[in-house]
This record gives sequence, structure tokens and C-alpha cells, in this order.
Amino acid sequence: MKDFDFWAPTYFAFGRGKEARAGELVRQFGGRKALIHYGGGSAIRSGLIDRVKVSLTQAGVAFEELGGVMPNPRSGLVEEGVRLALDRKIDFILAVGGGSVIDSSKAIAIGAANGGAWRHFYVGREVKVRPAIPAALPVGVVLTIAAAGSEGSPNSIITLEPENLKRGAGSNILRPKFAVMNPELTMTLPPFQTACGLADMFAHLCERYFSPTTDVALTDSLCEAVMRTIVGESVKVMANPADYQARANIMWAGTLAHNDICGVGREQDWASHGIEHELSALYDCAHGAGLAVVMPAWMTYVHKVDTARFARFARAVFGVGIGEPDGQAALDGIAAFRGWLKSLGLPLTFAELGAREEDIPLLVWTLNLNGNTLGGFKPLNDADITAIYRLCL
Amino acid sequence: MKDFDFWAPTYFAFGRGKEARAGELVRQFGGRKALIHYGGGSAIRSGLIDRVKVSLTQAGVAFEELGGVMPNPRSGLVEEGVRLALDRKIDFILAVGGGSVIDSSKAIAIGAANGGAWRHFYVGREVKVRPAIPAALPVGVVLTIAAAGSEGSPNSIITLEPENLKRGAGSNILRPKFAVMNPELTMTLPPFQTACGLADMFAHLCERYFSPTTDVALTDSLCEAVMRTIVGESVKVMANPADYQARANIMWAGTLAHNDICGVGREQDWASHGIEHELSALYDCAHGAGLAVVMPAWMTYVHKVDTARFARFARAVFGVGIGEPDGQAALDGIAAFRGWLKSLGLPLTFAELGAREEDIPLLVWTLNLNGNTLGGFKPLNDADITAIYRLCL
Repeated sequence: MKDFDFWAPTYFAFGRGKEARAGELVRQFGGRKALIHYGGGSAIRSGLIDRVKVSLTQAGVAFEELGGVMPNPRSGLVEEGVRLALDRKIDFILAVGGGSVIDSSKAIAIGAANGGAWRHFYVGREVKVRPAIPAALPVGVVLTIAAAGSEGSPNSIITLEPENLKRGAGSNILRPKFAVMNPELTMTLPPFQTACGLADMFAHLCERYFSPTTDVALTDSLCEAVMRTIVGESVKVMANPADYQARANIMWAGTLAHNDICGVGREQDWASHGIEHELSALYDCAHGAGLAVVMPAWMTYVHKVDTARFARFARAVFGVGIGEPDGQAALDGIAAFRGWLKSLGLPLTFAELGAREEDIPLLVWTLNLNGNTLGGFKPLNDADITAIYRLCL
Repeated sequence: MKDFDFWAPTYFAFGRGKEARAGELVRQFGGRKALIHYGGGSAIRSGLIDRVKVSLTQAGVAFEELGGVMPNPRSGLVEEGVRLALDRKIDFILAVGGGSVIDSSKAIAIGAANGGAWRHFYVGREVKVRPAIPAALPVGVVLTIAAAGSEGSPNSIITLEPENLKRGAGSNILRPKFAVMNPELTMTLPPFQTACGLADMFAHLCERYFSPTTDVALTDSLCEAVMRTIVGESVKVMANPADYQARANIMWAGTLAHNDICGVGREQDWASHGIEHELSALYDCAHGAGLAVVMPAWMTYVHKVDTARFARFARAVFGVGIGEPDGQAALDGIAAFRGWLKSLGLPLTFAELGAREEDIPLLVWTLNLNGNTLGGFKPLNDADITAIYRLCL
């Protein structure tokens, strides 16, 4: 087990109707004037934003609002949010939405606490030492999508315009102060978006589970427990989108998949996320859909690095390959994973995603490894990444 | 899944030699004058206390010290610690030890922040609404025993003198600010103490797992993952006490078993802990040893309330009862659990523990249910508890 620091101080208020506590929690964590940041019209049409405003008002918290966050959140709106926060003396960012809204909120929180500067904290995988973020406004979350885990994570991913480069920032000071999690808010998601969320949280566990660190019995077992839960509950929620218990288990799984409780003590991989980010940056596809295409291709390409690990994955998560040699079990596990993604209605190929073979050199170029490698399980160079993109065809 | 609030803000610094960071962490969390609180002479003889003092001095933190905490920590030493903390204007309590030292530190932290008052916050299970603790000094931990999970929990148990009543306090403000966890520090524990720790952390999971709440797929699966890890790693650590990786997995398992990540969303039981506390209060036996006697007896008495759950436990944790009817599997699981405790060298009966049949009425009387019941899985009255004590004979 590798040495680790783990600090996950987010306060979670989980259950039906908990958005009514948003105002109380903003105030508890020091907010007096909040920026409500959200995405499209659904949060307004559903009445959620109004309920949040009532809660803030009752708690004596003033507020401004900024909507319009799109999936794969863009730097332009972040700039607008930073200006607004500085102009109006905002002291708290309240994200009402999913991962894109939360990530955009974290970027605004950085800019507002650093005199407008935020962009240079967002860097690519070619940068080995991330710039330290000196300060950020506190961020709170009312979560509406179970997927990215940003409600409990120290990370934020923004698509930087005009180059359309997807780049990330990370620091414990970006972990939200609180997250209000009402599973009912996720019941009206379209099935495709629910499925993308499931693929995203499952991928967050894979990035941790497929690791060169093999002496982490506990986090291995925790990863498998959360993966099994996601697969098991996914069947219920796709059959009945209003299944509260399945929605609740999935929502909490999305948080635990990415707050690093399933990752501590091990070297992690994250190659598939890097490879996918170029797809969603170029084609503006859903991140979870991109992962559904990339992850099985990555697995197919790398599994022989540690066949026993992939065999264990097959048996422990999908219950296949039991009694078979590891080599066959590993392939069965990848096939079962692909089958599960297909059962969710997710794309499995470039064509289904709307990506093009002829763009592969561009994708590799924008990933910008500069001669470095990507990933911890098997360090990948440009040729490896090209091969993985080709396996997506 | 029941609604829940979850807040576990403890900062964990995990790995070899991390006690050198104690001073830096005390300072980071606001301490300028710390009380180093510890147990017996082993922490001094090993040089650990000296290393901690060096770390505090290097960080510019002044300190006083108070040793002498015994297993089943007593109120007398808490009183002494509170007076010392008030006299010397202590602003941070640094626990160097295991659960007893940490629990004693939490009590001192309450007293020092409330003008000396702490005792009335410690109440028994007959009190349904615990008094709110208005304030507590920050507590930090250098952990030396993997067992109680107090390094990440909001709880503290003290034996109140002169009546020798074991009573508890609980509040999120008692969660330690940080815990330094170096698995090497646990390598010199006597085998019996290592075994008691394993029984204690396993029991913390059982108290959560055996629950009337059945729609918590994720926390069920997490409980099983941690229980399986404890059983698997216990074999390694009993065979080779210096197995760093096994010590590390067990140490982290002890924290996760009790910081409530494995408990959220469900009604919990805690009857076995209540039943055991009377044993360790009366006979001053090790808490883990008392649990080894009580838990299998409790399981035997209650398992028919939900035979399917006990059958699942047997199959998922001990790999027994597979292919058998649930009734037989449940009994096989309890037998496997008992066998595991025996393999650790733990007592299984009153006689092995030094407890006496004729004291059973006294034990039931001091538990003081006042006509109420104990436990969530099967609410137990005085007659039930008497029967469980008799199953321990």
C-alpha cells in the first residue's frame, strides 16, 4: 500500500426534499451572498431553482444567479461567472446541477478568490506538477445528476476556448463544503443521461482498480463492492426510472466512486479519461458515452499487462469466468462489461458516437503528450493511444 | 435507504513515519499549545512520544503531557486532564495511542471547552435524546492500535467512576481533526491485543450490517468488503506481525468500519456493544475480548429474525453455506465466525473471559434499560439480554 493523504470533508445531506436545507447549509459554511449556478431550463421548469431561492431567503442569504452551463462546461461562461462574482461581491458559489455545473462552479470559485485569475490553474496531463491554487470561494452543491462525483471530489474539468482543450484543476480546497443529495431529483433524467452517468462512475472505479499497486486488499474489495452495486442497481433503474432505492444507491455510489475512498493507497491510471476527454472536446459528445467507447477498447489493449487482475474483475464484478483460466476469464469480463454498456443503450464505437477515423491523428495531437506517457497501469505513448482509438472503430 | 447526514472531515496522513507530521498538522488545525495524552509506558519506551515532541517543537507548538490512560478509560484521569488543560490554557488535545486514549482525549476536549463540564454529556442507552455538546477543543491523533475506529468517529466511551458505568458521548464536533496512521506502530502489539482489535472492528461492521433496513445495496456490499478484508488479512498478520501490507489494510479497515461510511442509510443495531460494555465495565476485560464472547451469542439468539441476511453474511464473508438452504447457511456462518475468533486466540465463553454466571442479574441491572429495549435488528428486553448472557456460558 502506498502512503496517502485522504481528506474528504464534504457534508452530505441525503434524502427526499433535502434541497430545502440548501440555505441553512450555505449559511453554516459562511455564505452571505451566493451565486446560484445552474445549467439548462429543466432546473427552472421543475421548480427546483425556486425552491432553492426560497431556502436561501429563509436563511437570510442574498443571491445572484447564472444559468446556461452546458455539458463539457466552457471557459466563456466561467469568465462571465467570475466577473459577476467579483462585481457583486459574491462569497459562496451554489451549484445546482450535475458534474458540469459543479466543475464550472469550482472554476468560478477560483477566479473570484484570485482577482479573476483561474485559467492557468487548468492544465493537461503533460504537466507533471500542477500549479497550487492559493484560494477559492466555498462551493456548495444541490445535485441533480448521479455521475461525475464532482460533489465530493477535489477536481474540475473545463473546456478552454477557443482551442477547445479539455483541461483540469485539482486541489482539496475545491472539495465542496456540502452536497445536498435528493435521489428524487434524478428520476426525471432521460434514460441516455442516466446511462452516461452509470458509465462515468463505473469508469472512475476502473481508473483506480486497474493499477500496478497490488497490495491494497481493502480498496480492491471496496472498488468491487461499488462496481457490483452500480451494475446491479442499473438494471432496476433502467427498468423503472422512479425506483427511489435504486436511484439512491446509484447516487451515493457516484460520490464514493470519485471521492477517492476507493482509490487511496494505490497508483491510479486515468488513461481512459485522458483519451476520452479529447473525444468530448472535439465532438461535444457526452463524457459517459465517450467512456463507453474508450474503456472497453483500453481494456482490450492493456489486459495482458495483468491478466489475473482482469480475471478477478470478471469474476468479482460480473460473475463470469468462474472456473476458467485467467486468460479466458479476462476476455469474458471485458465482453460482459461491453454487454452491460450496450444494455444501457450506450454507444460502443466511433460511428455510434459520431467520431471519425480520420480525426485520430488530431485527437492524439491535442492530447499533447509531448513525448511523455499517459496512465499508470500501462504507460501509453502516442502509438499506444492511436491503437486504442483504432480499437474503438 | 433512510435519509442520512454524513460528515467525516478528519484528515488522514497514512504511511511509514508519518508521526513526524504531527506538529505540522496540530498547527494547521489551529493548535498552539497541545496536551499530549497517552497510555502506558510503551509509547515512551518505543521513542514515539519523543518523536512526537520533536515534531511539535519543530512546528512551534508548545505542549504539556498526561499519560496513564488505561483500557476502558476512566473518568478520574479525564478530570485530571480537564483541570490541566484549563490551568495551562491548552488549545489542542493530541492523542497518542488507541481507542482508549482517543476517547479519553475527546472527553478532556469537551471539559476544557465547557468550563470543566463534560460528565453529563456521557449517557447510557436508556437516554433517547443525547444532550448536545456545545463545544470541544480540537483533537488530533497519532494512532498506535488498529481497533476502535475512534480516530475517525464522533464517539467517545468513558467508564464513569465510582459506579463503573460505561457511558458514551457522540457529536460530529468530536471527530478528530486529523489522524496520523503509521501501520509500523502496530507491529509490536501483543497478538492478543491485535486479535481484540480485529474483533472490535468486525463487530462495528456487524452492528451496522444486521439491520432492519434492507434496501441499502451499496452499504451492504461495502460492509461485506471490509469484513472480508479483515478476515483475510487477519490470517497474514497473526502469522507475521511485521507484515506491513496486512497491518496497513487492517489499520485502514478499522477506520472505515467505524467512521460510518459502512453504516449510512440504515437503522443500526448496537445491542452487542451495549451488552459487552457491562462486561468490560464490571470485569475490566478487553472490549474486543468481550465482543468475541457476546457477538456469536447475540447472533445465535437473533438470527431467525432475518435468516436470509445471516445466510448472505455466511456466503459473502466466510464463503460457507453456498448451495445450502438459508437456515443451515446462517448457522454455518455463525459457526465460521466463532471459528475465526477462536483462531485469533480470543475467548468465546464467560469462563474464558473471567465473567461469572451469578453476575448476570447485575449485568442486566447496570445496563439499565428502564423498561426500554436495546438494539435495532431485534429490540431486546431484559429477558432477551439475560438469555444472551446465558448463551455466553
